[in-house]
Parts: sequence; C-alpha cells; structure tokens
Amino acid sequence: MSFELLLQILSVFATVTLAISGVLQAARSEMDFFGALVLACVCAVGGGSLRDLLIGATPVFWTQDLIYIFAILIATGVTIIALKFIPEGKGIRHLLLDTVDAVGLGLFAILGAEKTLQMGFAEPIAVVMGVITGIAGGMMRDILSQNLPFVMRGEVYASAAIIGTISYTFIRLYFPETVAIVAGMGIIIAIRLISVYLGINIPQVTFRREKK
Amino acid sequence: MSFELLLQILSVFATVTLAISGVLQAARSEMDFFGALVLACVCAVGGGSLRDLLIGATPVFWTQDLIYIFAILIATGVTIIALKFIPEGKGIRHLLLDTVDAVGLGLFAILGAEKTLQMGFAEPIAVVMGVITGIAGGMMRDILSQNLPFVMRGEVYASAAIIGTISYTFIRLYFPETVAIVAGMGIIIAIRLISVYLGINIPQVTFRREKK
Amino acid sequence: MSFELLLQILSVFATVTLAISGVLQAARSEMDFFGALVLACVCAVGGGSLRDLLIGATPVFWTQDLIYIFAILIATGVTIIALKFIPEGKGIRHLLLDTVDAVGLGLFAILGAEKTLQMGFAEPIAVVMGVITGIAGGMMRDILSQNLPFVMRGEVYASAAIIGTISYTFIRLYFPETVAIVAGMGIIIAIRLISVYLGINIPQVTFRREKK
Repeated sequence: MSFELLLQILSVFATVTLAISGVLQAARSEMDFFGALVLACVCAVGGGSLRDLLIGATPVFWTQDLIYIFAILIATGVTIIALKFIPEGKGIRHLLLDTVDAVGLGLFAILGAEKTLQMGFAEPIAVVMGVITGIAGGMMRDILSQNLPFVMRGEVYASAAIIGTISYTFIRLYFPETVAIVAGMGIIIAIRLISVYLGINIPQVTFRREKK
Repeated sequence: MSFELLLQILSVFATVTLAISGVLQAARSEMDFFGALVLACVCAVGGGSLRDLLIGATPVFWTQDLIYIFAILIATGVTIIALKFIPEGKGIRHLLLDTVDAVGLGLFAILGAEKTLQMGFAEPIAVVMGVITGIAGGMMRDILSQNLPFVMRGEVYASAAIIGTISYTFIRLYFPETVAIVAGMGIIIAIRLISVYLGINIPQVTFRREKK
Repeated sequence: MSFELLLQILSVFATVTLAISGVLQAARSEMDFFGALVLACVCAVGGGSLRDLLIGATPVFWTQDLIYIFAILIATGVTIIALKFIPEGKGIRHLLLDTVDAVGLGLFAILGAEKTLQMGFAEPIAVVMGVITGIAGGMMRDILSQNLPFVMRGEVYASAAIIGTISYTFIRLYFPETVAIVAGMGIIIAIRLISVYLGINIPQVTFRREKK
C-alpha cells in the first residue's frame, strides 16, 4: 500500500468520525436533518478547510476529491438511523461522542501538520496548522450549536493536539514518516482518552483572587 | 442584455436583499448603526466570500467591483430610515425579513453554483458551494447576533437551497443556462416562501426516546 | 530605520496588544491555559488573517515570519503571570483591556489598509480591509467566548476604525506615507480612548416605537 493511499484512507476515516460527532451534537441540540448535515460537514472538513485557506492550498482539499462529501453524506445518514438504537442515560452517548472525537482529533492534527510540512512551512507553523486542523472543526460545531467551545474550558483537548504534533515533528527527524505519523496520532488519542476517562482537567487562567 | 450583465444585476439585487435582512436583524438585536452596517456586510457578502475562498477564487468578488460595497451602504442607510415607518406588531417585520431573505437565498444559491461550475468543479461541489453561498451569510448573521442559526432548526431553508441547486444542475443539461438559472432561483424562493406561509417544518434529529 | 522595519515593529506591537486582550478575555471567561492561548492567537492574528484571505495574500502573513507566533506565546505567558498581580475591583481590569485593545485596533486598522493599497486595491476596499483587520480579531474573540461582539453594541469602536482609515487614505495623498500612517493610528486610538473615558455611545438602530 502506497504512502499516499494510507494518508487518504486515514483522512477519510477522520472525516467520518468527525461527521458522526457533528450529528451527535446536532441531536443533542435538537436540530433538523439539514442542520445535522451542515454540522457534520463543518465538523468534518472545517478544520482542514481553514488550514488549506491559511496556507494558501486552495481550492480546499474536499473540492478536489468527491469521496469526502459522499463519506459525510453516508456517515450522517447512518448515524441518524443508528441514533434510534442508542439507549438513553448512563452517559453512553457522551462517552461515544468523546471517543469518536478523540480519534478524529488525533488523525486530523497529524495529517494537517504533515501536509503543512510537505508544502515547505517551518515546524512551528506545522504544529499550529496541525492543531487548527484537529480542533477548528469542533470549535465551529460548538459555536454553531451555541455552546462555549469545550476545547477552551479545562479539558485536555487542544493540549493533546499540541503535544502530539510537536512529538510528531521530532519523531520524523529520526524515524520514517509513517512511524512518526502513527506515533503522533497514537499520542494524541491516548492523551485525550486517558484524560476523558480519568476526568483530568487543566487549571483555569485566573485573575488574582483576594484573600477572604 | 448580455448574460454577464444579467448575472451581475441579479447578484447586486441579492446583495441588497441580504443587506436589508442584516439590518432588520440588527434592529431586533438592538445594535448601533455600525453594528447594523457590519451585519449587513456579513449577511450580504459572507456566503459569497466563503465560497470564493474555498474554491480559490481570490481576491473575493466584492473587492473587484465597488458596486457591492456601495449597494450595501445605500441599502443599509435606506433600511435604517425605513424602519421608522414599519408599524409594530402583527408579525409584519418578521414576515418582511423572511421574504427578502428567501429572495436573497434563491438568487445567491444559484449564482454560487453557477460560478463554481464555470470554474470547472464537479456538480456535487457546485451544489455544496451554492448552498454555502446562499446560507452562510445568514448563519454568520445569526452567530454574530447570538442566535442559533435558524437554518439549522426545523425550518425549510437549507433544504430549499439544496433542492433548488440540484434541480439547476439537471435543468442546465437540457435547457439554456439562463432558463436553468431562473428556474433554479424560482424553485428555491417558492419552496422557502410556501414553507414559511404554511408553517411547514422538518423533523428534528433525535436520539431514541424511551417509552413512557 | 527603514519603512518596512517600522511597519513590522508596529505590526508585532499590535499583535502583542491584541494577544494580551485575548488572555484578559479568557480570564474573564474562566478558560484554561490553552483556551487562553487559542483566544490570544485568534485575537492577535484573526483580523489580519481574514484580510489576507479576502485579498488573496495567502499564505497568510504569520506563516511567513515566526516572530508573530513567538510574540503571542511570550505575551500570553507573561500576561497569565501578570494577572496574578492585578488587583480586583475598581474597573482597572476592564480599563486595561479597553486600552490595550484601542492601541491594537489603531495599529492594525491602518496597517491593514496600507497593505491593501500596496496590493493595488481601490481606496474603499482598503478602508473595509483596514476595519476588518482592526475589528475581526476582537469579534472572533467575543464569539468564541460567547459574548455579543461588543463592537456592535453602541460603543465607538468600528466607527473609530472607519474614521481613522478614511482619514489615512486622504492624508497620504498630501503627506508622506509615514506621516499618514502615524496620523491615522493616532486618530483611531484617540477617538476610541476618548469615547471610553467619556462614556460616549452610538444610538441604536431601532424600529418605529409606538407612542405610549
């Protein structure tokens, strides 16, 4: 299997996971079918589109290969039907959203950094673009459904993407690109899932508090 | 009248309708004059700008032809003055907003799809870009004025744009471009207005509900 | 000192002031460290990035010169530490935010207009791009932290940027570019700060009110 094909498969897989996370959010916000489709699209290709715009790689990636749009359409349809069979309560829906989201985050962050490096940008820019690719879609989803972007409030999310993409830029100096990509994705997914399951949070930024 | 001139006239007309819808929303959100101007601009050129960015048609269209900015300025000024003469109550303001919005939606969705096809993209991409051109400005307006984008909550809005642009891409295979454009716009405006007047909604996406 | 160097120094200085304003907002919204970093980035380079995208000057400016990213990182770290020493109450934090914000607004609005003119766009487009460069970052900050963009609600903010950039486009016809830049920045900062300190507001756009 060629390296480019591997990248494309991972990219489509990440698209599907984030489209699902968009539909799950739409159901929680009581949107209609088309709202769910819009949210799935924004979630799935929002981050990668923003990256492509910022680095000047236009037209954006999903206009060049119809597989992304069809993957989102199918994922949205299947998820809407599947939603009827997920039992209520016990936090299972929330856990499901967190898990598919973590996988999408890991895949897209590293793929975003890889593309940026391929285009000749410096490592720090690749890290920023990787983080944008990973988190911007979810931030747009949260804004469109009128939630405070959860990436910004104490959860280990952007930080997982930052640590993973920085690791990736170092690992690829000493190991083959494929190893660095897989390792980077694994680091992000692991950090994110561990923090979700253990309930680890990041301290808030605060002003000085007066002593009571 | 040449075809290009027709497109430009329709485009300026759509710009004016959406600028008006931005000002109406600004008045409902109690913004100041400059807030109204910003909202009018976002509403009027937001969707088309996003489309141009995504398909790589930069600089965006309104930087190349000053008529758009001046049309928005005049429409904003006239609307702010006209607002003083629209009687309160009876839902007339809401109906007015819906109607100008429907016209803007129909014009921009088809114009967006047409431009995308002109640039050589595939039909599905043209449909997506048409929908973006039609609805993104209104979504930005709703987000900036802190409302849940109404396109996402049960109203027949994005769906009208989707049906109309898909119809357009088929009609143009068998009829002249001008006919296809007018028919596509007519379909969108008709679907949208009929659903508004009859109060037709789209079912929500929901999780399984336990039996009570 | 060369003209280009002066522009770059002003640009980095504006980046720092807006990054600080992002961190101050993050602290007010009880975000975590990474949320503060994201908000600082959005605030500092959001307006300039949007301008670069719209005028087709991609890749955007901060991907070509690492000084912007490092300036934001340092400003964010220093501000988070400094926050512990700013006493509560008396409106000092709010005043601080307004002041750094005013300086960032003035610098970025004129720099944005200057870059747009340099690239050969017409004066009205330069004014629009100047205003976008100045206010879009702050609007994105407000949306991400779920506040109604304060630029739209009665404060003399966008209007200061509009007056200042229009003045700049006229002054440069008769005076050297450097004079026009400094004058334009001074006008914006002065109008904004005077209106803050004197509490001057702009009337709201309203529908006709029935007589009681």
